[in-house]
Amino acid sequence: MEIKIMKNILDRNQNKAAEVRDLLALKKVLMVNIISSPGAGKTTLLERTCEELTKKYRIGIIEGDVTTDRDAQRLKKYNIPIVVINTEGGCHLDSHSISKVLDSFDLDNLDILFVENVGNLICPTQFDLGEAFKLAVVSTTEGDDKPGKYPMLFREAKAVLLNKTDLIPYTNFNIENFKADLSRINARVPLIGLSCTRGDGLKEWFKWLEDQFKTGIRI
Amino acid sequence: MEIKIMKNILDRNQNKAAEVRDLLALKKVLMVNIISSPGAGKTTLLERTCEELTKKYRIGIIEGDVTTDRDAQRLKKYNIPIVVINTEGGCHLDSHSISKVLDSFDLDNLDILFVENVGNLICPTQFDLGEAFKLAVVSTTEGDDKPGKYPMLFREAKAVLLNKTDLIPYTNFNIENFKADLSRINARVPLIGLSCTRGDGLKEWFKWLEDQFKTGIRI
Repeated sequence: MEIKIMKNILDRNQNKAAEVRDLLALKKVLMVNIISSPGAGKTTLLERTCEELTKKYRIGIIEGDVTTDRDAQRLKKYNIPIVVINTEGGCHLDSHSISKVLDSFDLDNLDILFVENVGNLICPTQFDLGEAFKLAVVSTTEGDDKPGKYPMLFREAKAVLLNKTDLIPYTNFNIENFKADLSRINARVPLIGLSCTRGDGLKEWFKWLEDQFKTGIRI
Repeated sequence: MEIKIMKNILDRNQNKAAEVRDLLALKKVLMVNIISSPGAGKTTLLERTCEELTKKYRIGIIEGDVTTDRDAQRLKKYNIPIVVINTEGGCHLDSHSISKVLDSFDLDNLDILFVENVGNLICPTQFDLGEAFKLAVVSTTEGDDKPGKYPMLFREAKAVLLNKTDLIPYTNFNIENFKADLSRINARVPLIGLSCTRGDGLKEWFKWLEDQFKTGIRI
């Protein structure tokens, strides 16, 4: 009974995600679904990314949060369109909520649409939003065992951003363990080390993202 | 439809949790449901706690993980009963899974049973396991805004352990912001700062937990 209901929910989500994906392809908007644990640095990543890429691209953001608009408040200084979805306790975004808020964006004047999903390494992975791809963000302070322990996201992600590399000297994080774990889950996924507070790795991330935009919007 | 099903799931969970709670009260076992984001330090907390409290108490552990038995492997050196529940992608433990594994413990020879829930700041909060209380663990590297952004756990927790205080000098974590946020959500909840790697705050945590054991098992 519960399994059937869950299947229905996922089927309906998938159908709506396909609609969203078609619409964004038509409008040539690259939608990136950013998933991480709470506090891994998604919003800081978006701050650094907006600072640089708004020079060249028209960027929009959908902020998924259980409650509050704090992340959106941090991002409004970039003068870009931002819509907040409060899930009111819900643990993930779904394609229906994305579809509804797309009306708030002028899709003809948008290049990249970031979705900052709810901070959760498990549930958001199950829900296709119609994104071009999922991006995994994980921070060194969470430990080097996360790919092995939470494989679903790392299996599906098109790239893995390892944030807070500046804190490695103060922790027992072992980059070789992390890489070995990740490569067992998803051998070819690009891994980009970042310190969003210090700036390390940002150029590599911008370049990778621009490559996705240039190739992705032609799909 | 979905809401009704969710209510049925939660009702059935609640009924089984009540059974578990009655059994544990009869056996005078204090069950502690530990909830945090991935990588906040639940397992390290259990390592430090086992090192000290196995001198005085008979401790058991239920390890909830999406997959792998890595946390249990880290804890087996304490020669205590440990049972792993792999949720196979599921985002929380429920009272039915706890009830099933209780058979594996000799409850007549147990004082404290820790449940290390799946790393997730949202979903585990909704499922009563029959525990004496929920314990929130949050780490400084997740940022000082977590109580406000994920209020459900902080509202329900009987205590909040703030781990990784040794990393505060290397982050923008502001303890006053954190405390103000927490006190808006749950004004009277005890907050214990910890560094499980360096040892800070552990004595206060052990004392608090012992007080709960001494009073709690008489309920």
